[in-house]
Amino acid sequence: MTRAETRPAPQEFDRVLSSMCTDPHPAARDAAMRFLADNPGDPATYPAVSDLEREAVAMLGDVVGLDDPHGYVGSGGTEANIQAVRAARNLADDDANVVAPESAHFSFQKAADVLDVELRLAELDDDHRADVDHVTDLADDDTAVVVGVAGTTEFGRVDPIPALGDVAEDAGANLHVDAAWGGFVLPFTDHDWDFADAAVDTMTIDPHKMGQAPVPAGGFLARDPETLDALSIRTPYLESDTQPTLGGTRSGAGVAGAHAALDELWRDGYRDQYETSQANADYLASELDDRGYDVVDPVLPLVATELPDREFRALRDDGWRISRTASGELRVVCMPHVTREMLDSFLADLDRSR
Amino acid sequence: MTRAETRPAPQEFDRVLSSMCTDPHPAARDAAMRFLADNPGDPATYPAVSDLEREAVAMLGDVVGLDDPHGYVGSGGTEANIQAVRAARNLADDDANVVAPESAHFSFQKAADVLDVELRLAELDDDHRADVDHVTDLADDDTAVVVGVAGTTEFGRVDPIPALGDVAEDAGANLHVDAAWGGFVLPFTDHDWDFADAAVDTMTIDPHKMGQAPVPAGGFLARDPETLDALSIRTPYLESDTQPTLGGTRSGAGVAGAHAALDELWRDGYRDQYETSQANADYLASELDDRGYDVVDPVLPLVATELPDREFRALRDDGWRISRTASGELRVVCMPHVTREMLDSFLADLDRSR
Repeated sequence: MTRAETRPAPQEFDRVLSSMCTDPHPAARDAAMRFLADNPGDPATYPAVSDLEREAVAMLGDVVGLDDPHGYVGSGGTEANIQAVRAARNLADDDANVVAPESAHFSFQKAADVLDVELRLAELDDDHRADVDHVTDLADDDTAVVVGVAGTTEFGRVDPIPALGDVAEDAGANLHVDAAWGGFVLPFTDHDWDFADAAVDTMTIDPHKMGQAPVPAGGFLARDPETLDALSIRTPYLESDTQPTLGGTRSGAGVAGAHAALDELWRDGYRDQYETSQANADYLASELDDRGYDVVDPVLPLVATELPDREFRALRDDGWRISRTASGELRVVCMPHVTREMLDSFLADLDRSR
Repeated sequence: MTRAETRPAPQEFDRVLSSMCTDPHPAARDAAMRFLADNPGDPATYPAVSDLEREAVAMLGDVVGLDDPHGYVGSGGTEANIQAVRAARNLADDDANVVAPESAHFSFQKAADVLDVELRLAELDDDHRADVDHVTDLADDDTAVVVGVAGTTEFGRVDPIPALGDVAEDAGANLHVDAAWGGFVLPFTDHDWDFADAAVDTMTIDPHKMGQAPVPAGGFLARDPETLDALSIRTPYLESDTQPTLGGTRSGAGVAGAHAALDELWRDGYRDQYETSQANADYLASELDDRGYDVVDPVLPLVATELPDREFRALRDDGWRISRTASGELRVVCMPHVTREMLDSFLADLDRSR
């Protein structure tokens, strides 16, 4: 190996439209830097960051309508989704299956492979939401968990969570809600999605997405302590007894960053951000519609639109970080770093590419 | 929630003797701060940190005697150990089992639960190393992977890796080496432990332990590309195709920090650190022996010693972060932040506690 000739620079966010992560809030960045070397996975050695984690989980409970939340701050949505399936599988009989909508994040494919459970994918309705009838058809006595998504990765849709809760209850299964991205905007909408709205057992909600915490800060929350018990592994040579997390050593930067972001922004700061992001999404959708593109109405701050391949490639060549849905639509995630000025610059480049 | 009255402080390292993590190297800390918001799990959006990861993996290959390494920088040793077992299980038949020594880290218990495989624990010899005869007895046609530890968590022992490779080969199984902690000191010893020394298939080696990178920076390395293929999940709506990692979003701070530490310290800096840490361990062992304690000879920079409960509690009350093995010994991990002055201060407090 030779030392790199030029020092590589971190990604600037001024052209990032594809990511569900964002530039962290300054208070969160500061806290992350301070706790960079702490390990919340070893609470006896690093008690301060453990205290911050308990407070962060309590604040996450406020966000999701749960008075006495059980959970932790982990590496992200994939870990939390795997853990939800793992807990449900461990609490169920053998041959467990998972029923999730086709819109579920690919981490459920990963969970199925890792955990050796069957993943049954339900069709979507005309508005990209889980088709409850098909979920009902797929669920059976072996179903360990029914998954609903509150803010889908591709189209920002919110599944009918209370109805999915009914299906789960009839099947004797858990209901898991993946609100990894949506969890910090949904409290300011009319959607039914959280522990207070429905019979939700577990939830994924990521501070490092719309919560403006630094990576890695994912949230895994459960209504009942038995869920974490089902995940616990004994831990010799730590001065604590058991560990319910998927990882071992964990990021103090992520935990302290999540705590600082929640402490700073919940609740008014997140509401302001939601309103700004949603207004930006509505604006972009309207501008694209004016140009004749077929746009999917943004019910949350995420715009999906048809876009010919030529324009997509030209925009990437212009330096825009953009990505597509599995069916080919351009998706623009209106994260906190995405400003009206960025969108105008993007639209100007789009107009030049046509 | 009310805002915390006093701002909690990160853990100072001047009394931490229990952790296998450490205060990161300044160059690594600086790189981590710069790349705090980058996500190596989304290489099309964050190409710079992806380039750093490729270089970091290549440098890790140099550390472990592997010319063309396949792998990635993940969340830590637990993830890498789970991934090693998962890859072996996916490449094997049903009813896979894992044979590991009783000294294996508890993450293998976690891997067995998560991956639904049988974990068979082999006895240790008189020097706390895997008993090869018992490993041989436990391995059979269903064994997917044999585990050896190169630097055990409790006693810093190095299993007979080449002999375990022979057992694995006879069983048609992979050989996985857990060098999470030991990987950055073993290159400067006479032990046979790496890809060049034995028929190793996969390895755990954590930059965030003796590698002086910030948390989270774990290393998972494989000799063959098929290993990563066995872990790959398709990734729609990212502009990359597949993802072999256990997590999704990953820490840019960890990847950039690992790169910076390796770039700065491999190879002379790590050798200097090994020599200092080993000298400290030898010194502490000698001082404890002089005081009449039964000390386990430190073959790597980790000292284990009998210590009555009363002294242990008194030292914890003095603010020392210390922990015990499952059989009750005090263990002191001579990490880079552990200086001779710290050890003298610790010994003085020990003397007062007697």
